[in-house]
Amino acid sequence: MNDWPFSQRARNLTSSAIREILKVTERPEVISFAGGLPSPATFPAEQIRVATNRVLSEAPHAALQYSATEGYLPLREWVAARYSTPQHTVKPDEVLITTGSQQALDLLGKILIDEGSRVLVEAPSYLGALQSFSLFSPQYVSVPTDDDGLDPEALSPALTDGARFLYAMPNFQNPTGRRLSLARRQALAAIARERGLPIVEDDPYGALDYEGKSLPTLLSLAPDNVIHLGSFSKVLAPGLRLGYVIAPQPVHHKLVQAKQAADLHSPSLLQRIVYEVVKDGFLDAHIPTIRQLYSAQCRAMLDALARHMPAGAHWNQPAGGMFIWVTLPGNIDTMQLLEQAVAHNVAFVPGAPFFANGAPTNTLRLSFVTVPPAKIEQGVATLAGLITAALDRQAA
Amino acid sequence: MNDWPFSQRARNLTSSAIREILKVTERPEVISFAGGLPSPATFPAEQIRVATNRVLSEAPHAALQYSATEGYLPLREWVAARYSTPQHTVKPDEVLITTGSQQALDLLGKILIDEGSRVLVEAPSYLGALQSFSLFSPQYVSVPTDDDGLDPEALSPALTDGARFLYAMPNFQNPTGRRLSLARRQALAAIARERGLPIVEDDPYGALDYEGKSLPTLLSLAPDNVIHLGSFSKVLAPGLRLGYVIAPQPVHHKLVQAKQAADLHSPSLLQRIVYEVVKDGFLDAHIPTIRQLYSAQCRAMLDALARHMPAGAHWNQPAGGMFIWVTLPGNIDTMQLLEQAVAHNVAFVPGAPFFANGAPTNTLRLSFVTVPPAKIEQGVATLAGLITAALDRQAA
Repeated sequence: MNDWPFSQRARNLTSSAIREILKVTERPEVISFAGGLPSPATFPAEQIRVATNRVLSEAPHAALQYSATEGYLPLREWVAARYSTPQHTVKPDEVLITTGSQQALDLLGKILIDEGSRVLVEAPSYLGALQSFSLFSPQYVSVPTDDDGLDPEALSPALTDGARFLYAMPNFQNPTGRRLSLARRQALAAIARERGLPIVEDDPYGALDYEGKSLPTLLSLAPDNVIHLGSFSKVLAPGLRLGYVIAPQPVHHKLVQAKQAADLHSPSLLQRIVYEVVKDGFLDAHIPTIRQLYSAQCRAMLDALARHMPAGAHWNQPAGGMFIWVTLPGNIDTMQLLEQAVAHNVAFVPGAPFFANGAPTNTLRLSFVTVPPAKIEQGVATLAGLITAALDRQAA
Repeated sequence: MNDWPFSQRARNLTSSAIREILKVTERPEVISFAGGLPSPATFPAEQIRVATNRVLSEAPHAALQYSATEGYLPLREWVAARYSTPQHTVKPDEVLITTGSQQALDLLGKILIDEGSRVLVEAPSYLGALQSFSLFSPQYVSVPTDDDGLDPEALSPALTDGARFLYAMPNFQNPTGRRLSLARRQALAAIARERGLPIVEDDPYGALDYEGKSLPTLLSLAPDNVIHLGSFSKVLAPGLRLGYVIAPQPVHHKLVQAKQAADLHSPSLLQRIVYEVVKDGFLDAHIPTIRQLYSAQCRAMLDALARHMPAGAHWNQPAGGMFIWVTLPGNIDTMQLLEQAVAHNVAFVPGAPFFANGAPTNTLRLSFVTVPPAKIEQGVATLAGLITAALDRQAA
């Protein structure tokens, strides 16, 4: 059959040109700053192996049988306790275990977006969220950002009134690595409370602040208005595909119904394995080792950028996470730059696709977590050389 | 916040009254024929434990890292080989690993259904499929069925022309346990080929034919028109949440894009574990043990039904699978019957919810796989007694 009756939704799905270019980065000789992958050096494989053996010997039937859509109760209780603060208690029946945070984005698109619904997103925003939400045809409104994250001043009532929600990643955002300042968190929470604006707080990187000094979540500042997404991908391992969403009862209830239709429940075995691994405080000792590794690699890249980048290039100084956001001088198109870079065995992700509405072409995302410092130096030098040459050509 | 801005889609989501009633069936004293759960006695926990240890010692990083949306290639190759016939070769790049078959239903709804699209379903049909498809607001057209499955004679061009697809479960259907006859498979495949009708063939129970004499899949009879869904839930364990969809390239391509937005990929670790378990022919020895168990339990229930059910009650003689479909005489409402039955510590699932368009109220689904024969006898006797009493009241 040549003409399958695809939905309009499916016809709007397009393959990413960047994805095609980046396929070559699987070549070992390529120094790739393009990845969004955590470092496998941080995966607790042995703890997971031990936990699996325990789960399969102590509760083989329950671990392999269908289970509740909401998720494994002890794991939900663990999440609820972890997110409870003196000011606000998170209840286990506000927690839904999802097949990675990505699934939470799909479920939220389903229950909150009608065709043409206004959805506020950061400029730039997480590409995976835009992909999930776009299947439900929202009207995106981009909120301007700077090195302190999104600017609450820009959230006029004209923008927020009638908006289905604001999607934000306050901690070490993908793609920028920026953290929303405390003052802006408080301002944003106040707007949410006063105007009844729902906020989807996506927080996969929150635990990865290098100083271990985390800022309060939007959930803790406006619990009635915030839907909080968390993940085990960056603190344990992404291949487990386990995340969670904390939401007020009415939203939780709809999310559970939508999840039942999406995959019934997340794998029982993996939920029990993760609970076994984390229940006795493993993360408190494990996360600092991840912070230390990423902090050192981030420092290596910041030093390399300072050494090699031409004047006029701007980048942020991440306080955590996996990414640095670079803005180039002149009118250098980072899509063209990527093709040249790949030809020189260096890869990154151009910034344009992360913008929902129109995009500057002179931005790019660099990830430093999977590349050893020596390679970081080499790759940044090569990349900076190509940029300098491009600027010289423009000046000539 | 009291008034969350839910989508129309979310507002249409409703909780199942049956689900509420059946919650009590978790009480140990209840004999439940309501479950759709496979018997945990069949779960190969030890093989899974051994496979996990091997995977985590041989490929810990790959098993715990992000992986390709399409799925683990060796597992996709295994699926392709298993479904290839002398007449038709299935290619690995037509196989997508999904988070249970349920996810394939969600993805298919996304890429094939627009609001008001005509979707043909069996009457009755699998409830989980109706739940997934309904999120995308199709117009259902019900196709009549009998003990041989759906009737291709009923598929007039007026029905099939312009339909997005026909959803069918040809083997031991949930809820009826019926198998589509060979003649009807051939007739259905001919209609699909001649009219370009897409068919979604959902086949979680195909391996569970008690005689081990499987009929040809619709996929093998009309490969260009059929999207085939398979699952490891009924032959290994449902808690792994792993299934697969075999589809022609254009459909596969859209499914992959939709899955990326849904959960990026199914858990890498579980895909490798399942491959380790099945790669050397484990299922060829394992599946017959499941068939033997279910066949014996089915026989026990059929005997009990013959002993206790009042005249005029009709049920099928399943050749495989997990379910028996019962039609009651008179105008007994099986929703009311369920409440009485639960009060007497017996549970089943009323048939009405399985019909997309209007439903007879005198049908019910019985599962026999998780209840030991003695309890089957006791439960069926109790249920039949309640039905007989109800009929007597009606006659009086």
